[in-house]
Amino acid sequence: MRLVVIGGVAAGLSAASRARRLDRSLEILVLEKGQHISYAACGLPYYLEGHVRRPEDLVVHNADFFRREREIEIRTGAEVAAIAPMRREVQLRSGERIVYDKLVVATGAQPVTGGVPGAFTLHTIEDARKLREFLDQKRPRRAAVVGAGYIGLELAEALRSNGLDVAVYESSENVLNRHDAGLTALVGKHLERCRVELKLNARFDGGGSYDLVVSAAGLLPNVMLAFGAGIELGATGAIRVNERMETNVAGIYAAGDCAEMRHLVTGRMVWVPLGSTANKMGRVAGANAAGKRARFQGIAGTSIVRVCGLAVATTGLSLEMARREGFDAVSERIEAHDRARYFWTSRPTTVELVAERRSGRLLGGTVLGDADVAGRINVVASALAHRMLVDEFQYLDLAYSPPYAPVWDPLLVCAQQLEKKLG
Amino acid sequence: MRLVVIGGVAAGLSAASRARRLDRSLEILVLEKGQHISYAACGLPYYLEGHVRRPEDLVVHNADFFRREREIEIRTGAEVAAIAPMRREVQLRSGERIVYDKLVVATGAQPVTGGVPGAFTLHTIEDARKLREFLDQKRPRRAAVVGAGYIGLELAEALRSNGLDVAVYESSENVLNRHDAGLTALVGKHLERCRVELKLNARFDGGGSYDLVVSAAGLLPNVMLAFGAGIELGATGAIRVNERMETNVAGIYAAGDCAEMRHLVTGRMVWVPLGSTANKMGRVAGANAAGKRARFQGIAGTSIVRVCGLAVATTGLSLEMARREGFDAVSERIEAHDRARYFWTSRPTTVELVAERRSGRLLGGTVLGDADVAGRINVVASALAHRMLVDEFQYLDLAYSPPYAPVWDPLLVCAQQLEKKLG
Repeated sequence: MRLVVIGGVAAGLSAASRARRLDRSLEILVLEKGQHISYAACGLPYYLEGHVRRPEDLVVHNADFFRREREIEIRTGAEVAAIAPMRREVQLRSGERIVYDKLVVATGAQPVTGGVPGAFTLHTIEDARKLREFLDQKRPRRAAVVGAGYIGLELAEALRSNGLDVAVYESSENVLNRHDAGLTALVGKHLERCRVELKLNARFDGGGSYDLVVSAAGLLPNVMLAFGAGIELGATGAIRVNERMETNVAGIYAAGDCAEMRHLVTGRMVWVPLGSTANKMGRVAGANAAGKRARFQGIAGTSIVRVCGLAVATTGLSLEMARREGFDAVSERIEAHDRARYFWTSRPTTVELVAERRSGRLLGGTVLGDADVAGRINVVASALAHRMLVDEFQYLDLAYSPPYAPVWDPLLVCAQQLEKKLG
Repeated sequence: MRLVVIGGVAAGLSAASRARRLDRSLEILVLEKGQHISYAACGLPYYLEGHVRRPEDLVVHNADFFRREREIEIRTGAEVAAIAPMRREVQLRSGERIVYDKLVVATGAQPVTGGVPGAFTLHTIEDARKLREFLDQKRPRRAAVVGAGYIGLELAEALRSNGLDVAVYESSENVLNRHDAGLTALVGKHLERCRVELKLNARFDGGGSYDLVVSAAGLLPNVMLAFGAGIELGATGAIRVNERMETNVAGIYAAGDCAEMRHLVTGRMVWVPLGSTANKMGRVAGANAAGKRARFQGIAGTSIVRVCGLAVATTGLSLEMARREGFDAVSERIEAHDRARYFWTSRPTTVELVAERRSGRLLGGTVLGDADVAGRINVVASALAHRMLVDEFQYLDLAYSPPYAPVWDPLLVCAQQLEKKLG
């Protein structure tokens, strides 16, 4: 039995590793078209920023490790040109054909360059190296970042840290790809304080005297290969999979940034490419490919991003998103101390919660602050996974001690306020 | 209609405030035997430590505030000598009688002095002032702390910060009142590094050349008043209440450190006096006393304490506790990075999870580390409130971004490892 995995970054290697763990006898081959495998692409902004010294530091394991420790064969520079499901084989660009019994498609996503000539991107280690080199050699003073998604905002921060003046162009009216006017206002205000110019509803036209343009206009799933093989795509444009990561073609799984996943709040299929989700999907695909039964329930839509020092986290639906989905939704936003008011490390934190008016079901949340933001959004994310009601949420037994949290956690205070608005 | 509340710290004032919010016409009187109301007793160690400058900084609101802003009458120095449920009245030590329609008993708890003559305690603002004065005037060099519960360990840290040599005597074999040998070993090792001497299974006999002895040997619920009035106590020795905070006597509620609460994992009544729980119980008692229907589900048993800079958090049951409760339990402990490995603020964190072998139901957890510990234990606490299975828990959509968390959160890594041990 041979498992072939196309793609050697997050989902692909999670799938291969999980399959190996569950089946010692499987032959496992990973085909990666690039030169690097198993690297944390999400760390690239911090390499640019300067805290991560070398892009190599982002590599989790090298091919040798996988060969030696996990008996997983990895071929880099191996670009797959076609999948032939009837013959259960993949064809490499080189012409070579490889037969599989099970196949995991983990082809990832690629940046939309958006037609900005000469623009840098930040998707691969190569990209980061080129951009770093440009910064060191050309010493640009003014940069335009195209796109205010999380990569755009991380880039803006990294470039500010390098001393550049930065303007961020966003073609929509919202930051972070989230229909949320309140969040956009808060983030916009913070960017202003950090002297990053945010231009909303603004298409970058190449004008202005920028020495550097970086495009972070979004991603598209790499689905050509799958589509060419008769694998169905979903309405999102990414590969359609069930909760076992099976595609419509027998023996072929898809996982990671090339595939859809279910949103736990709406129940609908969505496409939210993120490293953490990619790894989970890969793990599930690997387990099923190895003959076990594993399922991935879906995502709450949790994300966190550092914006010029501020942690900005969201999960589930914003008020606007909830209404668009047909919920009769209400929301409440509070500002509170993140630790006991009198404790010297205490800082303000903002919490917003969204709920369905009649049922009281929690639909989403937003947390901004200096510290403990990930922890707080994770509590909301867990509650969403359980369709928790605001009434239950407000009495959760959350940790209390002055150095770590106030006696009423900001989450609970916000839930109490929100409770008043429910029917 | 008159609501009388006995006790003016956490639960009492939460009850009064909640009742006022829900019923503008209620007459509300709070009787507090001490001179201070509404103060954060949990902050006292940090006043001793030096970061909180004056004990007054721990006062949330004064009596004037409650009178003016909430139309709640507060009498300090008003000690209740007896409750007469048949006549619906309370008698003060002064002889004065006050009639009530609804009564909330929030008499709190008191420290067990444990018969150590001349020992200080740290339960009230007065206690803290005396201890601070002693430190400033007598400049003791060697201190013994009796009890390794959270107050004992906070005290040990505060005294170390004041330059004292500290020994902690604990009569049981465990720290933090938790039957958990693994946790005790980890905390013990950390205390050693901080040069706090931990003596387990050790009764303090007054020996040794200590210049200062502080007793933190535990708390007892203040139930005399209630018991004298025919209010039932539970097996824990605290006042028995239902989820509406009703006692067995009509019109009388109990809340806070004097009352029992349900443990969400075992379903049994327990007594875990904590400020956060006291406030929640008070809120529920106040709502019900004001004629609304509110319920308090119970506690997961979440706690967090700073031990010489290290955050130590637990929730639910330890392995030993789970086995004592009759669960066929397994546990897994891992050490992992709390943020992306390559991110410069990344530090090790320890996560332990406990589950029932056959069902896979999560039963408890422990997290230790420098940062994000409260957030991680809160995710476990929320999962316990929902009887979550390890299999669901391991795929929770937790926030990921290098500055805040690794791609596989330590919680998820631990759950994956634990999953292997399940039946």
